[in-house]
Amino acid sequence: MDACAGLENEDYGLQAAAFASPPKWHLAHTTWFFETFILRPLSPGYRVFHPAFEVLFNSYYNGVGEQHPRSQRGLLSRPTLDEVLAYREHVDSALRPLLDDPAADPAIAARCRLGIEHERQHQELFYTDIKYSLAANPLAPALAEAPAVEAAATIAPAPAWLTFEGGLVETGHDGDGFAFDNELPRHRSWLEPFRLATRPVTNGEYQAFVDDGGYQRPELWLADGWELVQREHWHAPLYWRGGEEFTLYGQRERDSAAPVIHVSGYEADAYARWAGARLPTETEWEAGAAALAPGPVGVEAGRLHPHPAVPGPAQFYGACWQWTASAYGPYPGFKAGAGAIGEYNGKFMCNQWVLRGGACVTPAGQLRHSYRNFFYPADRWQFSGIRLAADHG
Amino acid sequence: MDACAGLENEDYGLQAAAFASPPKWHLAHTTWFFETFILRPLSPGYRVFHPAFEVLFNSYYNGVGEQHPRSQRGLLSRPTLDEVLAYREHVDSALRPLLDDPAADPAIAARCRLGIEHERQHQELFYTDIKYSLAANPLAPALAEAPAVEAAATIAPAPAWLTFEGGLVETGHDGDGFAFDNELPRHRSWLEPFRLATRPVTNGEYQAFVDDGGYQRPELWLADGWELVQREHWHAPLYWRGGEEFTLYGQRERDSAAPVIHVSGYEADAYARWAGARLPTETEWEAGAAALAPGPVGVEAGRLHPHPAVPGPAQFYGACWQWTASAYGPYPGFKAGAGAIGEYNGKFMCNQWVLRGGACVTPAGQLRHSYRNFFYPADRWQFSGIRLAADHG
Amino acid sequence: MDACAGLENEDYGLQAAAFASPPKWHLAHTTWFFETFILRPLSPGYRVFHPAFEVLFNSYYNGVGEQHPRSQRGLLSRPTLDEVLAYREHVDSALRPLLDDPAADPAIAARCRLGIEHERQHQELFYTDIKYSLAANPLAPALAEAPAVEAAATIAPAPAWLTFEGGLVETGHDGDGFAFDNELPRHRSWLEPFRLATRPVTNGEYQAFVDDGGYQRPELWLADGWELVQREHWHAPLYWRGGEEFTLYGQRERDSAAPVIHVSGYEADAYARWAGARLPTETEWEAGAAALAPGPVGVEAGRLHPHPAVPGPAQFYGACWQWTASAYGPYPGFKAGAGAIGEYNGKFMCNQWVLRGGACVTPAGQLRHSYRNFFYPADRWQFSGIRLAADHG
Amino acid sequence: MDACAGLENEDYGLQAAAFASPPKWHLAHTTWFFETFILRPLSPGYRVFHPAFEVLFNSYYNGVGEQHPRSQRGLLSRPTLDEVLAYREHVDSALRPLLDDPAADPAIAARCRLGIEHERQHQELFYTDIKYSLAANPLAPALAEAPAVEAAATIAPAPAWLTFEGGLVETGHDGDGFAFDNELPRHRSWLEPFRLATRPVTNGEYQAFVDDGGYQRPELWLADGWELVQREHWHAPLYWRGGEEFTLYGQRERDSAAPVIHVSGYEADAYARWAGARLPTETEWEAGAAALAPGPVGVEAGRLHPHPAVPGPAQFYGACWQWTASAYGPYPGFKAGAGAIGEYNGKFMCNQWVLRGGACVTPAGQLRHSYRNFFYPADRWQFSGIRLAADHG
Repeated sequence: MDACAGLENEDYGLQAAAFASPPKWHLAHTTWFFETFILRPLSPGYRVFHPAFEVLFNSYYNGVGEQHPRSQRGLLSRPTLDEVLAYREHVDSALRPLLDDPAADPAIAARCRLGIEHERQHQELFYTDIKYSLAANPLAPALAEAPAVEAAATIAPAPAWLTFEGGLVETGHDGDGFAFDNELPRHRSWLEPFRLATRPVTNGEYQAFVDDGGYQRPELWLADGWELVQREHWHAPLYWRGGEEFTLYGQRERDSAAPVIHVSGYEADAYARWAGARLPTETEWEAGAAALAPGPVGVEAGRLHPHPAVPGPAQFYGACWQWTASAYGPYPGFKAGAGAIGEYNGKFMCNQWVLRGGACVTPAGQLRHSYRNFFYPADRWQFSGIRLAADHG
Repeated sequence: MDACAGLENEDYGLQAAAFASPPKWHLAHTTWFFETFILRPLSPGYRVFHPAFEVLFNSYYNGVGEQHPRSQRGLLSRPTLDEVLAYREHVDSALRPLLDDPAADPAIAARCRLGIEHERQHQELFYTDIKYSLAANPLAPALAEAPAVEAAATIAPAPAWLTFEGGLVETGHDGDGFAFDNELPRHRSWLEPFRLATRPVTNGEYQAFVDDGGYQRPELWLADGWELVQREHWHAPLYWRGGEEFTLYGQRERDSAAPVIHVSGYEADAYARWAGARLPTETEWEAGAAALAPGPVGVEAGRLHPHPAVPGPAQFYGACWQWTASAYGPYPGFKAGAGAIGEYNGKFMCNQWVLRGGACVTPAGQLRHSYRNFFYPADRWQFSGIRLAADHG
Repeated sequence: MDACAGLENEDYGLQAAAFASPPKWHLAHTTWFFETFILRPLSPGYRVFHPAFEVLFNSYYNGVGEQHPRSQRGLLSRPTLDEVLAYREHVDSALRPLLDDPAADPAIAARCRLGIEHERQHQELFYTDIKYSLAANPLAPALAEAPAVEAAATIAPAPAWLTFEGGLVETGHDGDGFAFDNELPRHRSWLEPFRLATRPVTNGEYQAFVDDGGYQRPELWLADGWELVQREHWHAPLYWRGGEEFTLYGQRERDSAAPVIHVSGYEADAYARWAGARLPTETEWEAGAAALAPGPVGVEAGRLHPHPAVPGPAQFYGACWQWTASAYGPYPGFKAGAGAIGEYNGKFMCNQWVLRGGACVTPAGQLRHSYRNFFYPADRWQFSGIRLAADHG
Repeated sequence: MDACAGLENEDYGLQAAAFASPPKWHLAHTTWFFETFILRPLSPGYRVFHPAFEVLFNSYYNGVGEQHPRSQRGLLSRPTLDEVLAYREHVDSALRPLLDDPAADPAIAARCRLGIEHERQHQELFYTDIKYSLAANPLAPALAEAPAVEAAATIAPAPAWLTFEGGLVETGHDGDGFAFDNELPRHRSWLEPFRLATRPVTNGEYQAFVDDGGYQRPELWLADGWELVQREHWHAPLYWRGGEEFTLYGQRERDSAAPVIHVSGYEADAYARWAGARLPTETEWEAGAAALAPGPVGVEAGRLHPHPAVPGPAQFYGACWQWTASAYGPYPGFKAGAGAIGEYNGKFMCNQWVLRGGACVTPAGQLRHSYRNFFYPADRWQFSGIRLAADHG
């Protein structure tokens, strides 16, 4: 896995917060997913690699059974990395013949696809989690060397609006491609006319908010956000350090033209209010994005920090996730799947906010109009930024 | 104030949790509202009753200034009750000539109306808060004696559905009557066909959920709710005690026909899932209620615990608030008011869920289709219950 | 009870911290002590006043049974003050014939003496607790008016040492008078020569420590104390407010000649280190005090804030308690009493430090050489001050 | 370092609690000690290995400067193990010529001796800390294989008393050997006649206490201990798991004849009370041990779990530390050293209890009569057991 190229063995167990799982755990858990949902139920005679792994690497599936406490994933020095890699090989070896068998249960292929998409999600979490954990080290270690071009500061295009007429729109996954259950069913909504910014807010624009006392003015904040700002002494995005910021390339000068990232939903909302705008709803975002060529660039391009926007088409994907004003909930008519796998999305449908788009560390396969990412509005360790919206007319 | 008739002087300072303000504080804060938003800005020459009260009895208006910490309201043995009553008299006396003056600034009448509605909200909070605080006393003191009829157990009508066609509906406050800013603007939404239960879920029905292991089955719960159930060892609604429950009439036998109350949003959601139904969205609720005669019965009827439903028209008001599936947020086009008074509703538009309807302790003046009540899904100390909904066709 | 003269009814339930019990609770608990340890076991036919009081007003006697949680004593608005006073009268009435009966069990008189001493301790706690709770009110209410003389700032005598030869000394209670079990048995210790200051440290002297950066210099502090200073942001004694201090007479100018009070054991220890001295052991204190005329002045003199020392005899009693360097533990040969009453002192013999002397709010009957007061070194709400000691020769 | 032979690279960063530092940190910190207190101040021209290590590996020396937070030592995946080993080599190389130089400052040899003793202490902490951290892994990994003989259950000699006359005794370090400052000065104390058990309490004896409801009977406990038992749901020593226990040899059957270990001071005290005895004071322990041949067997014997006592001489050393009844404090006349090195012991002299003796994992060089170990009475992760004492005559 190329993503791990910059890791020392010592980094694989690192967990600086309950939410930031260690790399080794991601490797084991994604393997566990295939073992638990394909090999155990659908491959008679499969020999379990280690009986304790069912609990150790279960993330949150109560239907499967107990889980090792999330906050203690970093305490699992054993199994060692070599043992986890052997676990992956064991499971891969057991999967291959199943996938090559033309007579196999079609459920296997479907679950395998889900397992691959699941692993893609964890590939992104690998980046966000190790970034958080490395940031806890005063030595500010880099995961990778920045490509030469990354060093150059650039100028972002001036902010501009795209306008949309609204009306009765359809959103949600459409067509034959893969989608998670939370993107379904496709459904109708009514939208009033609205506008969306052509690109995310930049570091330079956000700096102006900071300089204008943004973090000291309660009238700009939702009450829960203001309480958090006070309690946690927030005064800038998560990884800002003076004029520099911590990145996966180490600590370095902040590019004012690049999109601001690692802001919470509360900060995104406060910024929007300060700017005389608002956050888009997820329906607005999706209806707007559907009208535009996606041009997605995923993590496969090898970029671990977002570039500034470039003149030309609107930038919806590939830089940062964008907080929406929408609380994460079920679409009308949503039904969670049966059994433990039905816990994948449905049980998280409260208290979180939807983010749309996709970041530089997101696999390209997950950049689509209907993809719903979701985090608590207090969360800042994702590559989360801000797209402005406004009423129109 | 009749609501206080059952209080001892010692009860006026009681605060068993940060959210459960003492009766004396409610008396002072509602007075503060008139002083702060009418007398100070709009009545030249008004003599402030006590300079420290601006901070002591400010609830959350950052635009006014600092606030005495919410969790310490019960520590204000001074001012005494007599002093707070004198404060009320002082403010009333200063208001009367303003209201009688035909040449007065029309803003005064508008703000006065807001102050009266604000006081009505606190009248209900008085009941919910003192109930919570009295419940913390092992002696289980009663605020009032139950009317004779209250003692009789009854039989609830069988559950039934009302069906609605949906389509493009308009909700939000309409017409000339008073409404809070969060009920505005009136706006369009698209609804698929849906059903609403004719009455709230009863204690007996909820008991079946408990008996069926409702509190031990994670698959019924949202993840955040399940975490709370485990951490707080919830196993029944807030005031259930064996076969009895704590009420404002003291601890007494639980009426299985009466609506279940004091459930959190998580419990309401889990119950609905167990029952093969769901919670209504607030738009569904409002569109449904608008089609029916309200027949509201407010706290003025003198009932401090909900009656069972009776055969006949659907029971939307007067028993309990009903959790909806809708996260509390701004309506399309919502604008908060300017200045400190704009903090009334807007800044709370995240992380809370909307409740609709109205409880036996709600003033009749606040029972209307468009009224939006809102609490965190973990909250249980309100008179909050459950109305089921379902897709239709 | 004169101590309560300055209280409003609203003050009787006030509890600003778990350790600061409400006045009404003190009234009920001291009554409970007589009921529980005399009337119930030794007075056949005694009619219990209220069955729930056994739990409600039990402080910490596991041998008696469960206890209402300490932190929730302020939530007992019922029983009302009138009911508690009726409880006191009920118990007093039941006790009187027992005490007048020449044929009564001699255990009754012994326990009654213990009950009186117990009530004296709570009389002092009444003052320290209500002081803490009133201090939480921004209005800074006074419990009493200061006597005229209190207002005059004075000059303290210069600091001086008393010297003692040490050797094999006997300490612990001696003679026929009353003593608590923790003052026994009288026992031998070996002391090296030592010195004791003639009077407690003054506000002015402590101010010099503050001005010299005392709260910013870790080398002056025990590690646990320094951790607390950082965590709680301590920078002065508990009730210092600028140049003023909160007293039972309200907030007023601080007298630099008066003894510093409301310092924790950590602050006392750090001050002593800064001053090139140390705290005395309790054996040194007692051996020293035994050699001097006590001249105790208790709370009966009506002083609720300590006077400066006056020239003449050493000031050991009547101003403030004095932290010693001794961890509170059992004397050699100590045996706790049998049954619940044995919990009075013995089970607290760890993690606390001994204080000696007595404060202006201490009843005169508890001012004696052998009396052992004890609190956690972090505690500051007692009238606790500092007496310096040093090695000699 | 043989102690590390059983470690995987992944184990070196493991920290399951703030108090349980990772192996890699111990390696770096003990090196830091030599660099900070010898090379930096006393070796002109010494080139610092890495400027950030001064903060990263400072444990608690405020006189040196800031410290990386203790609870985050496990988050330092960098420096890697190889880099830490290079650090050790760098410092060793710089020290060697100093030690070989006959003209060197004699302070160097003294501090070097202190550095060696410091490293010995951390060698023991390495064992206790890694035991705690491995115990957090459900796989119960072993650090080492048990020697063959360890597996055999044995029979402990019957309990018996040693009697001592007491009187005026001298304790504290005596003679020319190395001692820590807290063992000084040698001083006089008065002791009444006392008895000490010939060996520590066994698992079998402690099991009888558990079986007799020891953890359910508040009358056996100090109040702070009882509070902890309730809050933490203690019901057995730290590593007991059913009839087995977790050891550095993995989880295995518990030997009822072996000394009970991993009990807190509270448990030791409660056990003693249950047994009709008490804990010894540290002066009793030292006076008693001084009269007996030590026969110390340190960790050099290669035993990572205590053997049962054998018939013959009293067992004071080599099995487990023994809680005393003495709060850790300064001896009469104690003076802490000047500068940062004076923080070594003095600032911890409160709230902790003294333990005496030494465990199977203690280096032999630290087994002496006067050695004072100290921990909070709540601590259980050391190899801490129980020796009973009693009054005599």
